[in-house]
Amino acid sequence: MATIKDVAKAAGVSFKTVSRVVNGEKRVGPEARERVNQAIRELGYKPSLAARQLAGQRSYLIGLVLLGSGISYISRMMIAMGSACRDKGYNLITATLDYHQHMASDIVSINFSARPDCVILTPPFCNDQRILEHFERANIAVVRVAAVTPGYGLTVPVNEEPCALELMRHLIGLGHKRIGMIAPPLPLRASEARLVAYRKAVAEAGLEEDPALVIRGDFSFAAGVSATTSLLALPQRPTAIFASGDEMAAGVLAEAARLGYRVPDDLAVAGFDDSPIARMVFPPITTVHQPVRDIARAAVEAAINPDFKPQPFDYKLIIRGSTDGSRQHCLEPYPF
Amino acid sequence: MATIKDVAKAAGVSFKTVSRVVNGEKRVGPEARERVNQAIRELGYKPSLAARQLAGQRSYLIGLVLLGSGISYISRMMIAMGSACRDKGYNLITATLDYHQHMASDIVSINFSARPDCVILTPPFCNDQRILEHFERANIAVVRVAAVTPGYGLTVPVNEEPCALELMRHLIGLGHKRIGMIAPPLPLRASEARLVAYRKAVAEAGLEEDPALVIRGDFSFAAGVSATTSLLALPQRPTAIFASGDEMAAGVLAEAARLGYRVPDDLAVAGFDDSPIARMVFPPITTVHQPVRDIARAAVEAAINPDFKPQPFDYKLIIRGSTDGSRQHCLEPYPF
Repeated sequence: MATIKDVAKAAGVSFKTVSRVVNGEKRVGPEARERVNQAIRELGYKPSLAARQLAGQRSYLIGLVLLGSGISYISRMMIAMGSACRDKGYNLITATLDYHQHMASDIVSINFSARPDCVILTPPFCNDQRILEHFERANIAVVRVAAVTPGYGLTVPVNEEPCALELMRHLIGLGHKRIGMIAPPLPLRASEARLVAYRKAVAEAGLEEDPALVIRGDFSFAAGVSATTSLLALPQRPTAIFASGDEMAAGVLAEAARLGYRVPDDLAVAGFDDSPIARMVFPPITTVHQPVRDIARAAVEAAINPDFKPQPFDYKLIIRGSTDGSRQHCLEPYPF
Repeated sequence: MATIKDVAKAAGVSFKTVSRVVNGEKRVGPEARERVNQAIRELGYKPSLAARQLAGQRSYLIGLVLLGSGISYISRMMIAMGSACRDKGYNLITATLDYHQHMASDIVSINFSARPDCVILTPPFCNDQRILEHFERANIAVVRVAAVTPGYGLTVPVNEEPCALELMRHLIGLGHKRIGMIAPPLPLRASEARLVAYRKAVAEAGLEEDPALVIRGDFSFAAGVSATTSLLALPQRPTAIFASGDEMAAGVLAEAARLGYRVPDDLAVAGFDDSPIARMVFPPITTVHQPVRDIARAAVEAAINPDFKPQPFDYKLIIRGSTDGSRQHCLEPYPF
């Protein structure tokens, strides 16, 4: 990758002149400016944040202070990572990307311009070879949360299968024999253990393995709605649905309500994550608690100390009214 | 505030020696190290991020890449601010604070250690004089989103009242004569316009102004639940409830479901924000769309360019099944 020195050499000017051009300062003659700009174009030079900071008056950093009352996985992860960084004297720069930006070319350059010591990648980015290779070339350390593919960087492994299995056994224990599964989308292999657990539980209980009962969804509310429409239209409809994410489970609940099914008497519903959404519907949703705070702490520790070995994380089955029929809200403070 | 030079002078060592001690390097004798550490304690010196970066091998920045599928106001704000910063060649450092950390003493030092050019403060932080004064002393520019009190920094003003008034007129137009109001918590004065609009609409329609119909809530689901329990227990219960936030409106819906009220036939429900939660329940909740993306862009623009004058933002009333009784989900892609 071209450096400011390469540009200076190609343009036949000093390091300082290049820096002045890059930072938009006026004290450069038009001819020298043109030579520098041409060298920048030819070499594909991108000024690093550090270079811009050193040369200019600006930090090119903007701080944002927000109230952490968010209810999503991303808010929880952000709050927990921020707090873990703060404890270690680090600052967190975040790049939040829309699912549809996932493959966009600017994805990997975002944090790079600020030259962090380490980048923490969460799914699906942690399993994207193109992104891993980018950071490897740039010589920036990577910590991969819930990575399932081999590749560059340290991995913070999670093990969702035992608790997903426990959830399935809970549904089977309630007498359900046909259980629908809204499985994770194929590209999100990090969550595939939830489907593996579903299949193991169905097999160990000797239930019929009907492929029509398994529908993939992209973790959105809309995916939960449409899978439920299909599952409830089956000639032999399921009496329970296990959605591999809580937003999808909320979609199941909403579609069940629209169609006039009572939950859980007509249809039991379970989710995964213990996102706040699982508590903000009625009845509240049975789910698996993801230890987001512990995972965030381990990721930050691994980012700072390459010898760190994370301990297994403590997933927990949370049984609520959407499966056991208890008619109370879940109003405890959110545990993270 | 003590600088590294003050420490060097007090300890009788060079700037470089202080920097080595601060960065944990080994090439400093025990006696000099002790003198430096004593000077650091006595002067209350806190090494800045820039000083640590210049002296050491580390950036003290950690990048985090996250999938922006979050459903809360904070996720939306974070994604929108990040995207606006990226467009301008800036990096965003975030400090997400729990409501209960609000008054904690470390609140103001977080972004400061990374020396951002500007800090964007959202409610309730933007109205906190202690925080504003801290940044003023530190000579860091401040942009205040939705600020309602005077003070240091540029303000990005919002005007929620006209659309809140429109929402109230919609409820009154449906024939509701007793409308419950779950008002914002008193410390969050940024949202007080929602209550002002409620009172104006009740007065202009000539409805009875019953103080028992107004209950304050802290924007949480739990506050929505408990206010609803109280409102529905009134001798003359309301037939509609306007909650000043969507999570509280979800609490109204859940409590109505638990008590067996049909929405909207027995009780109409409206929220505020157009958070994704308003679409993830059934029936979906009538609400006011906050133009989060436009607000974020204006805040970033103001952070970079002090002469920027933001245009008024476009709030929009979104009518859904929780008031008009239409029985369909809201499945369009989220507009921000």
